[in-house]
Amino acid sequence: MRIDIITVLPEMIEGALHTSILKRAQEKGLVEFGLHNLRDYTLDKHKRIDDYPFGGEAGMVMQIEPIDRAISFLKSQRQYDEVIFTTPDGEQFTQSVANELSLKQNLIILCGHYKGIDYRVREHLITREISIGDFVLTGGELVAAMIADAVVRVIPGAISDEQSALSDSFQDGLLAPPVYTRPAEYKGWKVPEVLLSGHERKIAEWRHEQAVERTKRLRPDLMK
Amino acid sequence: MRIDIITVLPEMIEGALHTSILKRAQEKGLVEFGLHNLRDYTLDKHKRIDDYPFGGEAGMVMQIEPIDRAISFLKSQRQYDEVIFTTPDGEQFTQSVANELSLKQNLIILCGHYKGIDYRVREHLITREISIGDFVLTGGELVAAMIADAVVRVIPGAISDEQSALSDSFQDGLLAPPVYTRPAEYKGWKVPEVLLSGHERKIAEWRHEQAVERTKRLRPDLMK
Repeated sequence: MRIDIITVLPEMIEGALHTSILKRAQEKGLVEFGLHNLRDYTLDKHKRIDDYPFGGEAGMVMQIEPIDRAISFLKSQRQYDEVIFTTPDGEQFTQSVANELSLKQNLIILCGHYKGIDYRVREHLITREISIGDFVLTGGELVAAMIADAVVRVIPGAISDEQSALSDSFQDGLLAPPVYTRPAEYKGWKVPEVLLSGHERKIAEWRHEQAVERTKRLRPDLMK
Repeated sequence: MRIDIITVLPEMIEGALHTSILKRAQEKGLVEFGLHNLRDYTLDKHKRIDDYPFGGEAGMVMQIEPIDRAISFLKSQRQYDEVIFTTPDGEQFTQSVANELSLKQNLIILCGHYKGIDYRVREHLITREISIGDFVLTGGELVAAMIADAVVRVIPGAISDEQSALSDSFQDGLLAPPVYTRPAEYKGWKVPEVLLSGHERKIAEWRHEQAVERTKRLRPDLMK
């Protein structure tokens, strides 16, 4: 799959797209990223892409023209399944949205910045608005990197052991059980004995019980 | 305030912490970041910080010892208000959590990676577990950067126009109204006339109506 990200601050997430799983997924040919500086698409000689809002509010607003030019340029190269805008009033991003997006071929993610973007962009150019949660960030850059990370890691082959993604929290509607590693005792704090027992069935039972107990206690809403 | 981030992949978020608002907030002396490579705290000669899970599950688990050493080192330098771990089963991060954290002096954020961290870390060393949403990421790095961004931008003076943060979505329980900027017409798509009218009271009324209408339609849960 291919993910194109349009932003005024590519340097903010360049590192994230070229580290760890995302780096390896690109090396394996599972995903290709395009990181596009919105300023490269403005006709303004000072490379401005924002202006004061109509009606005189505080903050700056991203203009429609450079965004339209950037999206049109990308669309002239290939077909896109979605043009995503990250905004706190969009559809809530969840694991199932990540799973669904991982099946797409080509995605554009437009990162908002400053006070917002000209609303006509959202009405006419965007196909899907996604929120990462009920809070406000400086811009959509970290959200775009996060969507890329969540989506790419569920592409088969992206993480070394597929089991590892399948046993994640949320994939089966339960929180993950606790995990432990060496040493078995540290400062008097011990690993639960069952995990050291070598008894596979008992370990599986314990893990399921823990997952259910933790989900009931911490996230009863997931069990409905 | 000071935010120390402990991670196995500092390069993943270094760019995010030194761009835009976060960069300027540091230059203004409003926040100081410490980005700590967990591998600098292991006694293992190969700099390993993870090991196989007890009980034989897939994936690797971060060990308690280097994490304990990193947190202890930081605590020997200053007092911390919270030692935060980012995990999908933690407390949901919201604007009010961001507002609350922005009043703290010193925070540690520990980024999980791989399959998880030894659960004893969570039981004994962590004071607060925060989730960014119901989805799984490669690691907590992007979450830590996002928390830093959301927290720092509400520190008075961090963004140039304080009004701008106060009129954000969620600060008043309503989604933000649409914003528009030049040109007033683009490809036949027009800015609402009221915004061009110069009539302050009508503009304020229109914005409030739009905020209420959008919130009712998109996020009725916020209005309860």
